Formats: sequence, C-alpha cells, structure tokens
Amino acid sequence: MSTSAVSTPLKVGSAKLPSRVTVFEVGPRDGLQNEATPVPVEVKAEFVERLVDAGVRALELTSLVRPDRVPQLADAEELLRRLDLPEEVRTVVLTPNEKAVRRAVDAGVREIAVFASCTETFSRRNLGRSVDESLRMFEPVVEYARRNGLAVRGYFSMACGDPWEGAVPVEQAVAVARRLDDLGCTELSLGDTIGVGTPGQTVALIDAVVAAGIGMDRLAVHLHDTYGQALANASAAITRGVTVVDASAGGLGGCPFAGSSTGNLATEDLLWHLHGLGIETGIDLHALAGTSAWLAGHLGRPSPSRAAQAITQAMT
Amino acid sequence: MSTSAVSTPLKVGSAKLPSRVTVFEVGPRDGLQNEATPVPVEVKAEFVERLVDAGVRALELTSLVRPDRVPQLADAEELLRRLDLPEEVRTVVLTPNEKAVRRAVDAGVREIAVFASCTETFSRRNLGRSVDESLRMFEPVVEYARRNGLAVRGYFSMACGDPWEGAVPVEQAVAVARRLDDLGCTELSLGDTIGVGTPGQTVALIDAVVAAGIGMDRLAVHLHDTYGQALANASAAITRGVTVVDASAGGLGGCPFAGSSTGNLATEDLLWHLHGLGIETGIDLHALAGTSAWLAGHLGRPSPSRAAQAITQAMT
Repeated sequence: MSTSAVSTPLKVGSAKLPSRVTVFEVGPRDGLQNEATPVPVEVKAEFVERLVDAGVRALELTSLVRPDRVPQLADAEELLRRLDLPEEVRTVVLTPNEKAVRRAVDAGVREIAVFASCTETFSRRNLGRSVDESLRMFEPVVEYARRNGLAVRGYFSMACGDPWEGAVPVEQAVAVARRLDDLGCTELSLGDTIGVGTPGQTVALIDAVVAAGIGMDRLAVHLHDTYGQALANASAAITRGVTVVDASAGGLGGCPFAGSSTGNLATEDLLWHLHGLGIETGIDLHALAGTSAWLAGHLGRPSPSRAAQAITQAMT
Repeated sequence: MSTSAVSTPLKVGSAKLPSRVTVFEVGPRDGLQNEATPVPVEVKAEFVERLVDAGVRALELTSLVRPDRVPQLADAEELLRRLDLPEEVRTVVLTPNEKAVRRAVDAGVREIAVFASCTETFSRRNLGRSVDESLRMFEPVVEYARRNGLAVRGYFSMACGDPWEGAVPVEQAVAVARRLDDLGCTELSLGDTIGVGTPGQTVALIDAVVAAGIGMDRLAVHLHDTYGQALANASAAITRGVTVVDASAGGLGGCPFAGSSTGNLATEDLLWHLHGLGIETGIDLHALAGTSAWLAGHLGRPSPSRAAQAITQAMT
C-alpha cells in the first residue's frame, strides 16, 4: 500500500505555504519526562542519535531540573556527555533557574529554553510561583545565557486554555510572550499545553503575537493532541506563516494535567502532513517512524501516532 | 478541568466560516460494518437512538447488502423495523444494487446511498466490477429511488489515493463525481477512504468538483484518520465552504484495506473543532461522547477518538 502522502503544490486553496518548516523535536524531553519509569540514559542517547540520523535538525534534549523533582531527567548531564552531535543540529536544554543555566553553560549547551505559564494557577502549580515571579526569575537566566552566546527559546504555555481557569484571553497570553521577548528570548513557542484550542483561536493568537512585534520567523507552535486538534491547529498555523512546529516522535508525552493519556502532536502525523503539502523538512518519515517503533519497544507500548501506527504496520 | 473548546468568532484568520455544519454520522454503518463480531441488533438500535437523542440529525443507518457477504449488517431490515425516528432526522441506507433499493423502498427508507470508487483496482476488489460497470449498475438504482421520492447520496471513494494505484489524479476523481451527479445523486460525498490526503489536495479536489458544476451545498467530505490527517482535512474543507462532514462516533470503523486499525474521523474530535470555531451542529458533545463510551463497553475496547477519551476520562 501507499505509505507516502501525495505531494501537492505549496498552497491550500489560495493560501501560499512556506517551502520549508522546521520540525522541532521535543520527544526526548517533553515526551520522556512523562514516563512513569525513567528511561535508561543509553536508550535516550540512542533515541536522539536515531532522530538526528533520520534528519531531525532541532531538538529539545533534556531539562536541567532537580533530580528529586523530575527523576526521569536526573541523567541530563550524563546524556549531554554521551552525545556528540554535528554543529548544525540545534540542541536545546530546558533550564528553569540560574543554577540550571550555569550547569548548561558548563556542559557546553548551545541553546537553552525557559518555560513560562500564561495562567496564574498553572504557574503556581507547575513552577511554584506567580507568572510575574517566574518571569523575574528568568531574567538572570536569559541574561547569563545570552552573555555566554547561547540562544534562548521561551515557551509561553497554557496559551489557549487552562484546566482550572478555562479559556485564556489572547491579551493575557500575548503579555507573557512580550515579557519573554523583552527578556531576550530568541525564539518563542506558543504552547497549547492541554490541547483545547481550535484554529480560529490559534490563528488569532499568532496574529496578536506578531502584531506585538514578535516576527513570524521567531514564533513556534507547541500543540498537544488531547482533543485531537493538534494537527489541524498546526496546519492553520503553517498556513498563516509559522515555520517552526514542535512535535514528538510517535506522539510521546502527555500533559499530566490534561486528564488524558494523549501527548504532543506526533512528528509522524506532522511529517505526513507537511510532505503532502510539498513542504520540505529534511526528515525521512519512514526512518522516523522506525525510530518511534524502536522506542515503543523499550517503553512497552505502541505509539499513539496514527501515521506511526499505519507506517509501522505497512513495514512489518 | 475544561471539557469545552473555547469558542471564537466564525473565522480562521481572514477566512469566513459557515455558521452551521451538518455532521453526517456514519458510525452505525461504516463503523459497525468493520466489527469482527456482529453487534446485536438491539445494541445498534439503541446506538442510533442515543445518537439522535444527542442531537444527530443525519445518519447512515445500515447497508442492504447480501447477508452472506457482510454478516455484520445482515440485520438491516430488522434494524429499520425497530427504529422510529422523527421525520426531521435524515436517515440513509446504502443500497449497492436494484434489489437493495427495492428492499429499501419497501422498508420505508427515505434516502439511499450508492458507493462508487474513483479507482479501478478498488472498484474491482470492493464491488467486483470496473468503475464504469458499477456506475452503470447504479443507474437503475438511482432512477428507482428518485422515482419513489428518495434522496440519493453518492460516494466517490478513494478520491485522494488508492492502496494499489497510489495518488489519484484530481480529474479522475472529478469524472466519477460528475457521473454520480449525472445519475441524479442529490448529495455527493468525497471519500478519502484510506486517509492519505492532505489539505492542499483536499481543497484542490473540492474546488475541481465545484468547478464541474456540483454546488458546494451538495458536497460532503468523508475522511479516514489512518495517517492522522482527517480533522486537518475536514478543517480545510470547512474553511473552503463545505458544510456537510461525515464522521463516526468515537472514531469507529476502519478501512480493511488501509493496513491500520484507525477508522473514520471521530465525531467527538470534529465537534470539539466545530464548536471551538463557533460553528453550530445541534449536537451535544458530552452526550455524544457518553454514547461512544457506552458502545465501547459493548465492543470491549476503548474509542480511538482523542476527544472521546479525554472527555470520558474527565466525566468518570
């Protein structure tokens, strides 16, 4: 059977599409962080190497958090030591505080990320402080990173809705994006952390962020598939001009607050989509699906990605 | 947690959206036809009644096929006898041949459907005859139905790609749609039967069908989620002006030729999307998800719909 999308010209109706999209792979961090049983460091390293071999050129590798808080990522420095990736691969490490960014610089990390919330409730539950307090905490983090020549990715999460607060007003999310921009973040990632958004809201938010002076080329979208909306939202974002889309191999991950087992937008579903639209990614979909299948063997459960399932089944 | 999409104005960026979309529920036929073990007729009847109670106003109920060929639907007439649905509910029965349409008229059916293939290989494998032969076979079927005052839905399936033939040229799919139109079909449903399409192709095909003289108001889309593309394609179709979208409760079904267990676009994922876009459907999403959960209990496995899973988990 056919295992490639039909490639069409770079447009949907009259909307022109970008010729290339960067798939920002978050599986190693956002995905594996949510595993009940920590994944051995050698599996993580091989996972990253296989992703890069498949053509992935932008990844979030791990997070320099307190090992007692997130045991799944307690091996962050060990993982970084094991990896020897080509210079052209963007590798990002999440650093919640000053101590973490110092560890990152010491470990030779080239790019860091900070993770802010657009809502007070999630901020207090996830970061243990208010939105403003967390942004002030990030000031020296970003400053230290930039002074050491590192790029900084800033997440503004819960941008569409919050499990406790409901719908998030566009202005509230834009305000957090602007604060991250003011801090010196080089790229901003719009996070629908619980996957409640739909394209009208997603595009309105993108437009508002761009209107606030943050260039479309510095904006990424980070979408979860809790309600099956992730790819439709990504598609709307790309049609609007966004060229960086976060995704996790095999749809790994899952927001522990979403009350659902579904995770990030699956890289395979996204690749099928982009390649079908004639958009280049540089990634080999079949190699990527093979990597997800290999990891699924280690995790002991199949990938939730539709495309990964269909391709893996066709290959076996 | 939030279990409703955030409702936004009726637009995605600058694209205006329809204020109302008809969700055409195909679970009872396209879904249950693919169950390994036939579902008891009383469960089917209750399933249909629950769907209607949830607000569904257009359904494909069953198919009047040979019981030895499709034992899952051998109870078609018994099911029709048991149901007593309000007049305003569109109920469709698939009728592959003249004998079937006569049975349908005798059973008091108000609308039938015929199912054509856009590709020769699928036509021969699924219908046992060429595309042209099958369309000629439908001539007296549609004629008899129309003469008896029945509406006729015509599916043109494998419209985007075929497991054996690969990509289907737009002209090839449009030619089959035109033949169905010429036969007298009142509504046409564009079927991406193996779920390989992406929005560029889907929209190009919609535009070509409309350019061939088939009004947008008579066009539906029937999308499978094999590669996770169904909702993104539905979203693009709706943004283009399509106002009838086929879906199955809980994502029931699955094309036996797709090499994957995934089925139709899930009604729940579609409803979340439409309601989030501010588009009316008349359907209560939570009641619908409850119906899927109830049926999942009978089928002995959870629904593959992301939204159904998330909502069911939040309700329990």
